Amino acid sequence: MNYNEISIQKHKESKGKMEIKSKFPLETKDDLSIGYTPGVAAVCKLIAENPEAVYTHSIKANTIAVVSDGSAVLGLGNIGPEASLPVMEGKSILFKEFGNVDAFPICLDTQDTEEIIKAVKLIAPALGGINLEDISAPRCFEIEERLKQELKIPVFHDDQHGTAVVVLAGILNALKIVDKNLENIKIIMNGAGAGAMAVTNILMRAGAQGKNVIMFDSRDSLYEGREGMNEYKAKMASQTNPEKIQGLENALRGADVFIGLSVADVLKPEWVEGMSDKPIVFAMANPNPEISYDTAQQTKIAVFGTGRSDYPNQINNVLAFPGIFRGVLDARAPQITEEMKLAAAHAIASLITEEELQQGTVIPKATDKRVGSIVAEAVKKCV
Amino acid sequence: MNYNEISIQKHKESKGKMEIKSKFPLETKDDLSIGYTPGVAAVCKLIAENPEAVYTHSIKANTIAVVSDGSAVLGLGNIGPEASLPVMEGKSILFKEFGNVDAFPICLDTQDTEEIIKAVKLIAPALGGINLEDISAPRCFEIEERLKQELKIPVFHDDQHGTAVVVLAGILNALKIVDKNLENIKIIMNGAGAGAMAVTNILMRAGAQGKNVIMFDSRDSLYEGREGMNEYKAKMASQTNPEKIQGLENALRGADVFIGLSVADVLKPEWVEGMSDKPIVFAMANPNPEISYDTAQQTKIAVFGTGRSDYPNQINNVLAFPGIFRGVLDARAPQITEEMKLAAAHAIASLITEEELQQGTVIPKATDKRVGSIVAEAVKKCV
Repeated sequence: MNYNEISIQKHKESKGKMEIKSKFPLETKDDLSIGYTPGVAAVCKLIAENPEAVYTHSIKANTIAVVSDGSAVLGLGNIGPEASLPVMEGKSILFKEFGNVDAFPICLDTQDTEEIIKAVKLIAPALGGINLEDISAPRCFEIEERLKQELKIPVFHDDQHGTAVVVLAGILNALKIVDKNLENIKIIMNGAGAGAMAVTNILMRAGAQGKNVIMFDSRDSLYEGREGMNEYKAKMASQTNPEKIQGLENALRGADVFIGLSVADVLKPEWVEGMSDKPIVFAMANPNPEISYDTAQQTKIAVFGTGRSDYPNQINNVLAFPGIFRGVLDARAPQITEEMKLAAAHAIASLITEEELQQGTVIPKATDKRVGSIVAEAVKKCV
Repeated sequence: MNYNEISIQKHKESKGKMEIKSKFPLETKDDLSIGYTPGVAAVCKLIAENPEAVYTHSIKANTIAVVSDGSAVLGLGNIGPEASLPVMEGKSILFKEFGNVDAFPICLDTQDTEEIIKAVKLIAPALGGINLEDISAPRCFEIEERLKQELKIPVFHDDQHGTAVVVLAGILNALKIVDKNLENIKIIMNGAGAGAMAVTNILMRAGAQGKNVIMFDSRDSLYEGREGMNEYKAKMASQTNPEKIQGLENALRGADVFIGLSVADVLKPEWVEGMSDKPIVFAMANPNPEISYDTAQQTKIAVFGTGRSDYPNQINNVLAFPGIFRGVLDARAPQITEEMKLAAAHAIASLITEEELQQGTVIPKATDKRVGSIVAEAVKKCV
């Protein structure tokens, strides 16, 4: 199926992917008097006198914004806010379908960190949460951190934490297949963008040892003292790769896990042979992975995942973000904590059966409607 | 019916009045590949290469924001952004129901003019229009003017122009009943807020003579040189009341029209008797009009309108804003012009039949589903 052509055609036919639906009837004079004036004034007064009522009597209870500046959209790069809108619409309808969360796109006409922070703070009163999307690193780190500090509603940069949660879920199950422990495996992270940073961090919080982790950016591995690193890379370098190993081929020798959030075809099949027994490879570059599915099949890779829906083990954030927001909105949690993200990963992993593991399946399908509520329940238990 | 109680109950049951609905199915892997990745990337690229495509392939074609700072909500005053949300939700669902326009609430955490302008500009890329709502005068004038100048999408402050359009529609029909002309009637406007200013301006653009108009604020009439007037009142004073008549009772002597956008019970029945023959009174203070319906029935008032749904001739903005935005979105007009507002008023007025006029009806019911499309067509003809 040619998704591109069909997608363009369908977006044109329906002028975008989402619409507003009223929950109140508006047929009669009484309907108008209940949904709007004069009746609505009583609801306004209730909230004015008791601010908590905005969570029980308005859409704030279930509404978030999907906020982007269009600076890092899919693999397309900095295409600006208007061109990012179809992605933000898509994210919004996924929130609804898989988490029953009402989300709408906010595409910002700025890529300035302070202006983005300011804009999000200004629009927050009617919102129950903020999902940041496709904002480029390293600005995304400061934007998320500042908003988490300065707002009383959950703020979540999905490119970081959605990816991290789903990769961790997949790794947890993959380790069962190869019978290894997170505590002693050697992990190569190829990529040092927002997602890669978050994945590495969650793996370390889940038990991976920094001394066994090596992260690569487009130049080389990160290690303490290397030149050309921003503050986030420098921090990561101080926690990982103490032996200052350089070169991807070198680093891969004896490695148990390769995680790619980089570009196509950078993982050579001969390098895979230098990895430890039963290596795990998540090659998530889009649209073409770091090593192609067909090539990977001819290597000793034991568990293989990609970002694509047409191969097994698709690492898809939709397994995480709808359920996580469903959970925090239901619990009215002011933040999405590290504990919640770990719980979400374990919940996603828990859906895979012994039989599926035996077949090499480590992660539920993106369309699996069980996931949202399982994740939501796990998140709520952390409150 | 106790609207307040029912309204509070229903808002609580459904946690607000609106939700997001997907126009795309999201059941299968193919569905996800068309609505989201990888297919959506083709739509993003299309817009990045051809910016006009955002109007044909995204929700921008049909989506506006209802923006408020909560500073002048209904008759409740400055209750803040959270407490204003039920009104903005109500407005949003009216936009959908009566104009098929997708609108969502943006309640701003600021009442600073520059910050409001900045926030609206920052969120504009995904929006096809901006409906400003319940922002207090005189800030609302500058905010609307600046946004009209600085944005390429239509910006409309409904409290001003929606009111103006519907009042003009009613006055045009009322004048048919009493057989008078806008050009020579004497008009008393009681109130000098955002709505009153816009009503007076549209009446003058439609033919009323400034020399025959007297506007009152809470202190007294406006006239050139009076103290305690902001720049907008001063400008109005320079165009009206050349004889510097003071006192509402004085001003009403011989007046043909009284328009109230003020407070309850300020129009004494004995003053009505001093008005000209067959006076027209639109007493729109909410919830209680400037002269009660029952009292008005005992005077010589020929045509009577209020803001209330339980009396005849309800002056309700819902007759204007959904159709006006439907029209400019369909025509992709960059602004809502003065000509469009006049056309909208004439279109609304045109729906009243001779028979209805004979019964004293000058304005369609708020629930009349014909109005939106008639107004939209009239607006489109002005492009």
